[in-house]
Amino acid sequence: MTLPQITAQSGRFLELEKRLLEAQPSIEHWLRSQWLEHTAPFYASVDLRNSGFKLAPVDTNLFPGGFNNLNPEFLPLCIQAAMIALEKVCPEARGALIIPENHTRNNFYLQNVAILRNILRRAGMKVRIGTLIPEIASPTELALPDGGQLLLEPLVRKGNRLGVEGFDPCVVLLNNDLSAGIPKILENLEQPVIPPLYAGWSTRLKSNHFAAYEEVADEFGKLIGIDPWVVNPYFGACGEINFQERQGEECLASHVDMVLSHVQRKYREYGIDLDPFVIVKADAGTYGMGIMSVKNAAEVRDLNRKQRNKMAVVKEGLQVTRVMVQEGVYTFESVTDAFAEPVIYMIDHFVVGGFYRVHTARGQDESLNAPGMQFVPLAFEDTCLLPDPEASPDCAPNRFYAYGVVARLALLAAARELEQAAQAFEAGVGQPDPIGPQALKVAGV
Amino acid sequence: MTLPQITAQSGRFLELEKRLLEAQPSIEHWLRSQWLEHTAPFYASVDLRNSGFKLAPVDTNLFPGGFNNLNPEFLPLCIQAAMIALEKVCPEARGALIIPENHTRNNFYLQNVAILRNILRRAGMKVRIGTLIPEIASPTELALPDGGQLLLEPLVRKGNRLGVEGFDPCVVLLNNDLSAGIPKILENLEQPVIPPLYAGWSTRLKSNHFAAYEEVADEFGKLIGIDPWVVNPYFGACGEINFQERQGEECLASHVDMVLSHVQRKYREYGIDLDPFVIVKADAGTYGMGIMSVKNAAEVRDLNRKQRNKMAVVKEGLQVTRVMVQEGVYTFESVTDAFAEPVIYMIDHFVVGGFYRVHTARGQDESLNAPGMQFVPLAFEDTCLLPDPEASPDCAPNRFYAYGVVARLALLAAARELEQAAQAFEAGVGQPDPIGPQALKVAGV
Repeated sequence: MTLPQITAQSGRFLELEKRLLEAQPSIEHWLRSQWLEHTAPFYASVDLRNSGFKLAPVDTNLFPGGFNNLNPEFLPLCIQAAMIALEKVCPEARGALIIPENHTRNNFYLQNVAILRNILRRAGMKVRIGTLIPEIASPTELALPDGGQLLLEPLVRKGNRLGVEGFDPCVVLLNNDLSAGIPKILENLEQPVIPPLYAGWSTRLKSNHFAAYEEVADEFGKLIGIDPWVVNPYFGACGEINFQERQGEECLASHVDMVLSHVQRKYREYGIDLDPFVIVKADAGTYGMGIMSVKNAAEVRDLNRKQRNKMAVVKEGLQVTRVMVQEGVYTFESVTDAFAEPVIYMIDHFVVGGFYRVHTARGQDESLNAPGMQFVPLAFEDTCLLPDPEASPDCAPNRFYAYGVVARLALLAAARELEQAAQAFEAGVGQPDPIGPQALKVAGV
Repeated sequence: MTLPQITAQSGRFLELEKRLLEAQPSIEHWLRSQWLEHTAPFYASVDLRNSGFKLAPVDTNLFPGGFNNLNPEFLPLCIQAAMIALEKVCPEARGALIIPENHTRNNFYLQNVAILRNILRRAGMKVRIGTLIPEIASPTELALPDGGQLLLEPLVRKGNRLGVEGFDPCVVLLNNDLSAGIPKILENLEQPVIPPLYAGWSTRLKSNHFAAYEEVADEFGKLIGIDPWVVNPYFGACGEINFQERQGEECLASHVDMVLSHVQRKYREYGIDLDPFVIVKADAGTYGMGIMSVKNAAEVRDLNRKQRNKMAVVKEGLQVTRVMVQEGVYTFESVTDAFAEPVIYMIDHFVVGGFYRVHTARGQDESLNAPGMQFVPLAFEDTCLLPDPEASPDCAPNRFYAYGVVARLALLAAARELEQAAQAFEAGVGQPDPIGPQALKVAGV
């Protein structure tokens, strides 16, 4: 693999990377102590953006769907980490039921499910796949591009236990982000459900995640003596949005303004000669739907019908009523002429691999995870575990180590976010609201 | 890598391997529950012998010295496993002190220490190496064959804390098997010492290990429905031996007789047309000194002076006063014309790699770990984590999985052995004596 070039500002990135390398013992020590206090999600993937002067997470996915994009050589790492995760979640488990997304034709995704199944099997579990697709009324074998097969079976619920015909699993592993809400059949199960139901997009909010991340970034900044902004994108959130009825437009515009001006101030402080931009996205939801890249508040005031429709719904028709305005982080990593964005995969609190999302048709100030996006995954050849303090900070193992550190900060934020969500979920109330629906506040400042 | 051929009895081995593959979920489930009750040693290596009809451990080393023989591609697995081990032993640790064997010219061993250092560093520790060699009075840099360097520093003890000049570690990692006894400087330390002092050869007995292994093998046999003998070598132990003064010779001879006749019975039961043999070895000690391969009790009655001297002492001049008589397991694995013996490496309860010890000058009924032995390490190309139930039971991943299972049985035995040793050590008495010095008993029958 050719390591993507960092085409600008690499001097400053090398500074951050150098600092991460020097501070490795403190970082790992601090992370170890954090994992004693907080439980890592079963798995996660984190989208990073590397602008040279800044390396930050922009999205943390608790139902990662791209295990097929990882280097197959890392499979043993995945298996070992899954063994650890299973020991914690339910050491007594022999059987696991995977509940995937309702896709039957997305071969890439199906391959991801097959790899997850293999990881769990090789960690010593019996694994079956139960589908939420109502049309699948009997076991259905789907062919995989690699020649293998995937058997989807209809879910069978008996009392408060969920399984498939002839299989009563000890644990239910969700690889479905619950964008369509929490299906009745998954409610009040006896078996542990991992990740928990409240990690799904029907309850989770990105702004809660990034509020938790802000705290993590601040602690981390103090720990290794860096400006936390270097790893943390500013953001604000607006509630009570209705794009189609043009409600909440002013709130959105003023947040865009605020975030842009804060970023502008930072750019000036660091002598960065670039136009700040923000990403406006749904506060709940995934798959890059409902995402806009904006450089001026006016742009969100004058949305035409098509743009409003695009922003109004995300996957599964989920209505967008809250949006997050997140500082845009330029990507200065490119492979030949295409921009590249690292995606890091973790199981339990271990980095198990990653890949570059390489997109030929998008600019460096756009989200590379967008609807219809055709990305080329470029699997990391190295793990993120082998930093070499004696080599250049920007050699592959060292850059990957830096990715692994920042991804684990996001993972830690997810762990804390889920703790708070658990309390709210158990109390039967919604998610805690860190920003307030209309309050004009920019986090991270 | 060419997988060694199994040249005989492979049909029966395939049976065992097939059983292990089928039972994988039960095996992993059972091991998970065992690791909830028993703490795995920090690291270990297990020598296996594979006779086709039998796959059994013959030695379990709690201070493994061959990390240099592993495939470098497995390093990430080692790092991840070391992270887990450190989290358990002392999550608060930032600094680790490695205490190696007193070798300064054994380049293979020094390379092993360097790799251990790298594993701990990449797990996020500060690492220094403190030596017990009295002649090393100031920091001494040794050149490594790979061009790297190893800095040995004299130990500094302040009160009950051990370190090297300017370095007060949180944990002391022994890579020294304490054959010469427990040095005063290591006694009563405040810091955790891993493995514990009583895991050294000054207190440990192989017969205690294999007594614990016998229990493990019996439980495992019941679990997956196999004759435990298939994974367990018979053995007996004799105390009060003095080779030079010819004391205890009768005890030894009668044990040899007993073990041989029990093995003969099993060979007959399974229709194995081979001569049984036993390995007579020191009950404490390592490095393959004091080892004999014997097919008839008469052979131990008529030891000449040279043979008696050879058996009388092991490493560091440790006197042999107890011997173990262990069923010899033929090795039917060979690489071209040389016999091969798998060695499996583990950190915490994870298999992290292995290699074949290939010896051109020895027979299939001899120990391949013997003084002056020139072995060629043949690193496993695959991990032991990727069994493929749909492939032949004897393809590399499946054979390696079988190795990994049996090695972990030995690891579990070591965990139980150390629990008992801890009690005895704390009570200030010696090791529990499973066999009794003169009692004629063969374990495993």
